[in-house]
Amino acid sequence: MSTIVNRRDLEFQLYEVLEIQQLFDSKRYGDFDRATIDEMLDGAEDIAEQVFLPLAGRLDNNEPKFVNGMAEMIPEAKDALDAYAAAGFFSAGFDEDVGGLQLPYVVNIALNGLFGAANNALYGFPMLTVAAANMLNTAGSAAQKALFLPPMLEGRWFGTMCLSETQAGSSLADIRTRATPRSDGTFSIRGTKMWISGGEHELSDNIVHMVLARLPDAPAGVKGISLFIVPKFRVNDDGTLGEHNNIVLAGLNHKMGQRGLPNTVLNFGDSGETIGHLVGEAHHGLGYMFHMMNEARILVGQCAATLGLTGFLHSLEYAKGRPQGRLPDNKQADSSQVPIVEHADVKRMLLSQKANVEGALALILYCALLVDRLKLEQDAARRRRLELLLEILTPIAKSWPSEFCLEANKWAMQILGGYGYTRDYPLERFYRDNRLNPIHEGTYGIQAVDLLNRKVRMDDGAAFSALIEEIASTVAESVDELREEAEQLRRCVELLEQTTSGLLGCEDARQRLANATPYLDAVGHIVVAWQWLRQANVAERQSAAGNGDRSFYEGKVLAARFFFRYELPKVIPGLELVASLDRTALDFPVAGFAPE
Amino acid sequence: MSTIVNRRDLEFQLYEVLEIQQLFDSKRYGDFDRATIDEMLDGAEDIAEQVFLPLAGRLDNNEPKFVNGMAEMIPEAKDALDAYAAAGFFSAGFDEDVGGLQLPYVVNIALNGLFGAANNALYGFPMLTVAAANMLNTAGSAAQKALFLPPMLEGRWFGTMCLSETQAGSSLADIRTRATPRSDGTFSIRGTKMWISGGEHELSDNIVHMVLARLPDAPAGVKGISLFIVPKFRVNDDGTLGEHNNIVLAGLNHKMGQRGLPNTVLNFGDSGETIGHLVGEAHHGLGYMFHMMNEARILVGQCAATLGLTGFLHSLEYAKGRPQGRLPDNKQADSSQVPIVEHADVKRMLLSQKANVEGALALILYCALLVDRLKLEQDAARRRRLELLLEILTPIAKSWPSEFCLEANKWAMQILGGYGYTRDYPLERFYRDNRLNPIHEGTYGIQAVDLLNRKVRMDDGAAFSALIEEIASTVAESVDELREEAEQLRRCVELLEQTTSGLLGCEDARQRLANATPYLDAVGHIVVAWQWLRQANVAERQSAAGNGDRSFYEGKVLAARFFFRYELPKVIPGLELVASLDRTALDFPVAGFAPE
Repeated sequence: MSTIVNRRDLEFQLYEVLEIQQLFDSKRYGDFDRATIDEMLDGAEDIAEQVFLPLAGRLDNNEPKFVNGMAEMIPEAKDALDAYAAAGFFSAGFDEDVGGLQLPYVVNIALNGLFGAANNALYGFPMLTVAAANMLNTAGSAAQKALFLPPMLEGRWFGTMCLSETQAGSSLADIRTRATPRSDGTFSIRGTKMWISGGEHELSDNIVHMVLARLPDAPAGVKGISLFIVPKFRVNDDGTLGEHNNIVLAGLNHKMGQRGLPNTVLNFGDSGETIGHLVGEAHHGLGYMFHMMNEARILVGQCAATLGLTGFLHSLEYAKGRPQGRLPDNKQADSSQVPIVEHADVKRMLLSQKANVEGALALILYCALLVDRLKLEQDAARRRRLELLLEILTPIAKSWPSEFCLEANKWAMQILGGYGYTRDYPLERFYRDNRLNPIHEGTYGIQAVDLLNRKVRMDDGAAFSALIEEIASTVAESVDELREEAEQLRRCVELLEQTTSGLLGCEDARQRLANATPYLDAVGHIVVAWQWLRQANVAERQSAAGNGDRSFYEGKVLAARFFFRYELPKVIPGLELVASLDRTALDFPVAGFAPE
Repeated sequence: MSTIVNRRDLEFQLYEVLEIQQLFDSKRYGDFDRATIDEMLDGAEDIAEQVFLPLAGRLDNNEPKFVNGMAEMIPEAKDALDAYAAAGFFSAGFDEDVGGLQLPYVVNIALNGLFGAANNALYGFPMLTVAAANMLNTAGSAAQKALFLPPMLEGRWFGTMCLSETQAGSSLADIRTRATPRSDGTFSIRGTKMWISGGEHELSDNIVHMVLARLPDAPAGVKGISLFIVPKFRVNDDGTLGEHNNIVLAGLNHKMGQRGLPNTVLNFGDSGETIGHLVGEAHHGLGYMFHMMNEARILVGQCAATLGLTGFLHSLEYAKGRPQGRLPDNKQADSSQVPIVEHADVKRMLLSQKANVEGALALILYCALLVDRLKLEQDAARRRRLELLLEILTPIAKSWPSEFCLEANKWAMQILGGYGYTRDYPLERFYRDNRLNPIHEGTYGIQAVDLLNRKVRMDDGAAFSALIEEIASTVAESVDELREEAEQLRRCVELLEQTTSGLLGCEDARQRLANATPYLDAVGHIVVAWQWLRQANVAERQSAAGNGDRSFYEGKVLAARFFFRYELPKVIPGLELVASLDRTALDFPVAGFAPE
């Protein structure tokens, strides 16, 4: 059994639940068929297993060192990323016109999930590079694209996103980095950026930083932020590398996890001029960044889910092989110990993982397919509906896996007991790695406000309605065997609608948003329950049609049942709390926490 | 503000809620008064702050190394423990007849909590030594006590508990270490012990291992386990050290956290004879061990709670000083950022910590006071009732803080955002350290079975009834301002009673125990809600009596309200699940988790 992927489940999600083969009927994706996709997944699995996976523990044990102003990494990291590049995975998701394979996004996500599961920190490099290239491809000029995209898509130059500053992490409105126009149309960049993943290293020939900065005439707040391409080495018009662009590594952050990916403090323009190139229109930088950030958020959710998955598979393997204790009704002290997978509590911890992880993966792939469907959809109204669905699901796809697949990693460690707490097994690393996900790319609390304050109210509630309709349609189409679960979900959705309408009626913004996080928790659970009902319906139908794999389908249906019995009921007290517009936290006097 | 203790809250718990000054009326504790106790706490706080605290990060960064068969630690560790010994804290909790101060257990726990908060890993050494000495004091012969106790109580010799073996962690019935009688009445010990904290080091002159092993004629299972004193260096009759006892350090476990405390694999009798001394009667070892283990379990709960506390205090300090963002109804981009403590979601995360941590501490101190009350109680029936209360609360006191103060540490990190994920701040260390607590000294699942299968059924349900009566009496005595909370708790207890009686009626042991963990979750929440209601009643009464400290008392009442609104309602779906005797996990077919 692979410890990075359950291919049977992935195929179930892609071909049986999402039916991505329908994409192949389109002109855009007409070159693909299932055999091609499966071969690509095979190839990715090989590289992930053979090159990324063996390096994960070593990278964790050898975090980047600050040496001579550089972030020094173990050399095998470059070999592994070169293998990823050589297989064409940097460019696979891009359109053919810029040299890509035009791979459906949903497949590209699935494929990259193998690398995320095998070596989450190392996967950060291509993930960030592709995100930066995507942004360039969307917002850059033809000349910028011609100059920067090819080496990025070949994996020769890597990319970063430079948003945060020490005083502005969650509040991008407060960034201070300045961009001053130069006579040749470029800009002089000055400032310090914080939390820049992959900000410095020697794994690629150049690093293309996508930097948010303010022009001299910029209005205050988020409407005065522009986006710049700021390469580590300046780039000549013929694409060759010029001088160092005076970006100085000011420090490395020493993280709890994700140690294979240097996280840096970068000074721009402090020791010589740093030149940047404006992307798109001035003051529109945040919009461009968020275009990319939305995809990045889905990818964060996926990283969380794949870390959860590998933890699940590891702990399952361990539980099958580890004898310990006897079943409760066996009083014979001299009988053999049973493998712990036979203990109900261990099964519960495995099922909890399966339910959270496969529910999260289903949600991520569903969102990814929305991106593909958007590209194919011609009808404007249907396009808008897909857009709205993607908008409202994005904060959930980012947050829910980050929280509940971290929880899955906790159970994986627990199954291994003391062994899980040691560094001889990778479980504690998964747990440390995953702890980043509720923090970066917008914290859990930020996503909660995004959901409740923006997405739920978007287009007069059209995004929220679209989501409710999708869930209702799954409920309506459910097979008889899942009537009870469908009805339970329907009642939860009803409560969610009532709660949401009560919240929106509250005119005090502080009060309305005070419990945004419990609201996100509840919506997340409902959305994942919906994803499970979708899966269980397919599994029941396949099973009834006699399509083999009985124990696989049975496992899916039972995992769905588990989620509905053990997890979904938590939504009720959660939504009741939110509906009460409780002010306990909001009004709590700071002096009451503890004496000075 | 101290980052290791909220002295005002500790005084509230000790003197206002638990009214420990009543102990001073007894002959046993008649030498103490509040001023003496406060002075001792001052002294402990000084050493904890000045000696233990500065070392915590360094110990984490410099875990013990395996050098020449030894566990090498940084030398400052010895200095710190010598300071702890010099202050008399090893012996303080012991009776005067063995050279102790006869300090009430509740005070001793409170005092040691300061060290646990300051440097949890280092505190492990005295914690284990005192636990081993306690066991010796209870079960050892006069000669054994005369030989081993004094140097342990002076902190010159440290102690360990050697229970687990590689094949027997949660299942002590399966230990294999053998003890063979020698002609002089001692025993030859052979076997390998795993997960031995403090098993090897050079911080003390000798190490006294308390070892579980089997005699040649031992019956299978837990009824064939005996307890032995097995010193690192043999001890001559005059108390001087003799030869090395051939205990070999076979390896160090490399842990995610708790790195200041070496965790070892030890071989006994493999390279020369290892001599041990039988403690008490043959085959009764597990009973002696559990006498000590019960106290150890309360201490584990306290370690979890104090790690939660220091995380709470750190994140509170950070939240007060960190400006970021603006309140939701402030649309002015050029206004100043507010300290994040003003954001409702940050307040929620702080309140969650306060509610979990101070609720857990209240429970720990309540249990500790039961130990003292037991020592004073003369009436046999009342003694038994106190014993039963302690028995049923022990698995909760061990588990609830381990899970929910780990959760508190998660929120503390979250408040610090990216900074919380770096090793520049201690939050990620607390989170790593605390992750051990649901694993060791009986996992969460083991405690759940102990609660449901042993404690709830003990004496025909007398322990359970005693607990319910105690809660009911707090409910009945609640002040008017807390009527709503009292009623909410009463309803939860009613549901708990119904659920419990349904469970006990289930004759299928596998089914009855299949959801022991959700049962423990729910009982834990009810018990902590009860502890909060006790605290809130006192705070309301003190406040009404005009006893100063209004914002402190207001903070206590609001934190109680928070727990009742945000946490206690989770008990309802939890108990409904348990009551349903759900078999989803129990019956789940192993093949359904994932294909081979």
